[in-house]
Amino acid sequence: MDAFLRELGDIPHTREASALRVKSADFSWFSPIMSAVLDGRTAEVVLSPRTEEEAVRIASACARHRIPLVARGAGTGNFGQAVPLAGGAVVEMLGLDRLIWQRGNVARAQAGIRLGVLDTQLRRQGREMRMHPSTKKLATLGGFVGGGHAGVGTVNWGILRDRGNLLGLKIITIEETPRVLELRGDDVNLVHHAYGVNGLVTEVELPLAPAYEWLDMVVVFDDFERAAEFGMALATADGILKKLVSVHAWPIPSYFQPLCIPEGKAAALLMIGAETREGFEALVRDYAGTITQCVPEAGIYEYTWGHTTMHALRADRGLTYLVCIFPRDDTVGAIRRVHRKLGAEVFMHLEFKRFAGYMTAEGVPLFRYQGFEQMTRLYKSFEAEGVRIANVHTFLLQNGGMKDIDAAQIGFKRRVDPYLLMNPGKVAGLDDLPGGISGAALEAAQLPASGWAY
Amino acid sequence: MDAFLRELGDIPHTREASALRVKSADFSWFSPIMSAVLDGRTAEVVLSPRTEEEAVRIASACARHRIPLVARGAGTGNFGQAVPLAGGAVVEMLGLDRLIWQRGNVARAQAGIRLGVLDTQLRRQGREMRMHPSTKKLATLGGFVGGGHAGVGTVNWGILRDRGNLLGLKIITIEETPRVLELRGDDVNLVHHAYGVNGLVTEVELPLAPAYEWLDMVVVFDDFERAAEFGMALATADGILKKLVSVHAWPIPSYFQPLCIPEGKAAALLMIGAETREGFEALVRDYAGTITQCVPEAGIYEYTWGHTTMHALRADRGLTYLVCIFPRDDTVGAIRRVHRKLGAEVFMHLEFKRFAGYMTAEGVPLFRYQGFEQMTRLYKSFEAEGVRIANVHTFLLQNGGMKDIDAAQIGFKRRVDPYLLMNPGKVAGLDDLPGGISGAALEAAQLPASGWAY
Repeated sequence: MDAFLRELGDIPHTREASALRVKSADFSWFSPIMSAVLDGRTAEVVLSPRTEEEAVRIASACARHRIPLVARGAGTGNFGQAVPLAGGAVVEMLGLDRLIWQRGNVARAQAGIRLGVLDTQLRRQGREMRMHPSTKKLATLGGFVGGGHAGVGTVNWGILRDRGNLLGLKIITIEETPRVLELRGDDVNLVHHAYGVNGLVTEVELPLAPAYEWLDMVVVFDDFERAAEFGMALATADGILKKLVSVHAWPIPSYFQPLCIPEGKAAALLMIGAETREGFEALVRDYAGTITQCVPEAGIYEYTWGHTTMHALRADRGLTYLVCIFPRDDTVGAIRRVHRKLGAEVFMHLEFKRFAGYMTAEGVPLFRYQGFEQMTRLYKSFEAEGVRIANVHTFLLQNGGMKDIDAAQIGFKRRVDPYLLMNPGKVAGLDDLPGGISGAALEAAQLPASGWAY
Repeated sequence: MDAFLRELGDIPHTREASALRVKSADFSWFSPIMSAVLDGRTAEVVLSPRTEEEAVRIASACARHRIPLVARGAGTGNFGQAVPLAGGAVVEMLGLDRLIWQRGNVARAQAGIRLGVLDTQLRRQGREMRMHPSTKKLATLGGFVGGGHAGVGTVNWGILRDRGNLLGLKIITIEETPRVLELRGDDVNLVHHAYGVNGLVTEVELPLAPAYEWLDMVVVFDDFERAAEFGMALATADGILKKLVSVHAWPIPSYFQPLCIPEGKAAALLMIGAETREGFEALVRDYAGTITQCVPEAGIYEYTWGHTTMHALRADRGLTYLVCIFPRDDTVGAIRRVHRKLGAEVFMHLEFKRFAGYMTAEGVPLFRYQGFEQMTRLYKSFEAEGVRIANVHTFLLQNGGMKDIDAAQIGFKRRVDPYLLMNPGKVAGLDDLPGGISGAALEAAQLPASGWAY
């Protein structure tokens, strides 16, 4: 390690214990299972390159000294993506934070730029990101591409892996003499949502949406089923512009204190285009909803998607969650069935999303964690209603169920990371799990989740 | 009539025979049935108001003298909307042609503005219409709202009647002392696609889309079924920006001479966002298509939607058409079944559209007209495959099948046009059909079309 560091010269780094702890953590504490398994896993050094040239030097040194490395943005992933299982280096990309260019509806930026900063710069040009996670303020572009899959805007544009949502990626290979590769077209998905195991991402090119004037809305309903029906109706109201349709059963709204949602109500958190406000209000009346908030864009998305779970867990650490996708046919019927069957145990949270060309809802429900047996029972109970589960309690990429890791992915990995140094332990079957990883991790990977990989 | 005209003073008008003939015609010649029935139906005078005040004077004079009137834009409707059945006045609205204001993504314009002029003015502000018909260059805003229902852009925004696509309308009632009414919200649909029977539209307020950089594309395929599969895949590729997905079986592309489409090929005519060109090209490869044209926006839409029929009929007046909508479930399967069953007789033309919240295709197929019996057989043959037909061979609003004319519509009509002077004969059951309307018209209205009114 010392020889490795000497070689890196003036590239900023730290071996200070608190920094190692902080920079080796992500939001996998959302899962009590991963939380236990990953506790105490830390890197031995945090490296903070400032330029692509420094990133190349790091890649070369890691290859020559066989130092494992984990690329890190802001550490806002939920699946242990950023937790080093085998020590080594965390490569914090925050120094590569430039918007390189923006031309019309396309922009290219360095991987370490925070999405909030990027979006603010784009707004000045009348543009915005097509989609972003609820962690926009903190999260980086490279982190979103490497560990995310969808977000605010997905109700319009589908998910990140859909053709057209990610135009190009520049990566550095982990070799003695690193290569700098540009991936375009379908090849971007070799790296997208691969937890940083397939090359060090330094630049991302992405399509933009025109900046709209959004209204943050809260609409409350007497019961959740009505709120879910409204959500689907709004999501499929083609003439009403929207960027976010997020629906929550009580008591979830109680975790959103600043929103002052009345006791016992189900709530829809929404971003609506100002130009279609009247049509939106007519739809609200159809479903007997009450608009309790309507303000120009003020960050309501921060209570939705992954942040819903965060606000809930901050209020009550006894809770945990699962992630599921409701079926294409009779989406609302399936939501209703699951809610009626499990509503007392499971608090429903829906994010409406375009998925594989049709509108559906992702569920991110919360429940009080009682152990593996309960988790298994709930997974099976959802799947029995035709609802597919993505396993968010494993750090194994294949078992997450959001992406297929096929031979092409593995072959690509071997070409860009021949010594298997990138985020080791995250791709099952490729390398042995590092010592000390408990049986619980492996058990979690076997939870009965069908996933929704294509 | 003379007293009526004297009262109108200096409002421009003509009683010249050729003008009466031209200004009493629309594109109902697309239908051999309507063409025969409506032949020779002309107004007695063409009035050309230049201001809203003049339109009010016309409304008052018509009411006092009991003169029937037909509001006219550019006469590009296909359903006899603009053909006067009972003489009287044609009120040509082209003089009311101002863009009144544009603020952000909302604009308000006078009804007589041509859509092409409006769209050009909006582009200067970085905006465009959400949707427009293939007749954009000629057609007026009021005509589109009164007689149209969808168009280029519908693949994104649904149809005109969908909440949010039409924000407000100003109408003048036909009374001795006309009232000027503003309709907003769902009330706009009292007037939209009502063939001008529910008040004289003078202003329209509508939401805008941001102006995108569109590429006009032609992609050819060896067979139509593959082209249809590609069309659906593109229409549901959420990350690929598009404004038009129009698919044509051979020999329809042979009617698009300037596009030079190779003999025997099926063709997709498309508008694609420049920023997602690479993803689009990957999709084309998946379906073994060949891109034969890719240029910055140059009017390819003029070969699609209603204009497809126009180009075909200009080449071969023996052809006619029908309009259908394919079912939500297994859309492509239904297209395939109909094509296999009737492909030798019926040349398929598809326009992919968002309809009632899901993606489907409208069919506007062409065939060589052999008479009523054939038309009835084809209607039944489509309907047997779960494909709903809108009857484009009748001028009766109810029987067109694109809109429900319910008690609210009729009640509204009686309030804004108490003497039933507006476009008489178009609403069945309200007034007697004017003399001389042949049995064929009534027979056509009874063609077995289920329509797709909500």
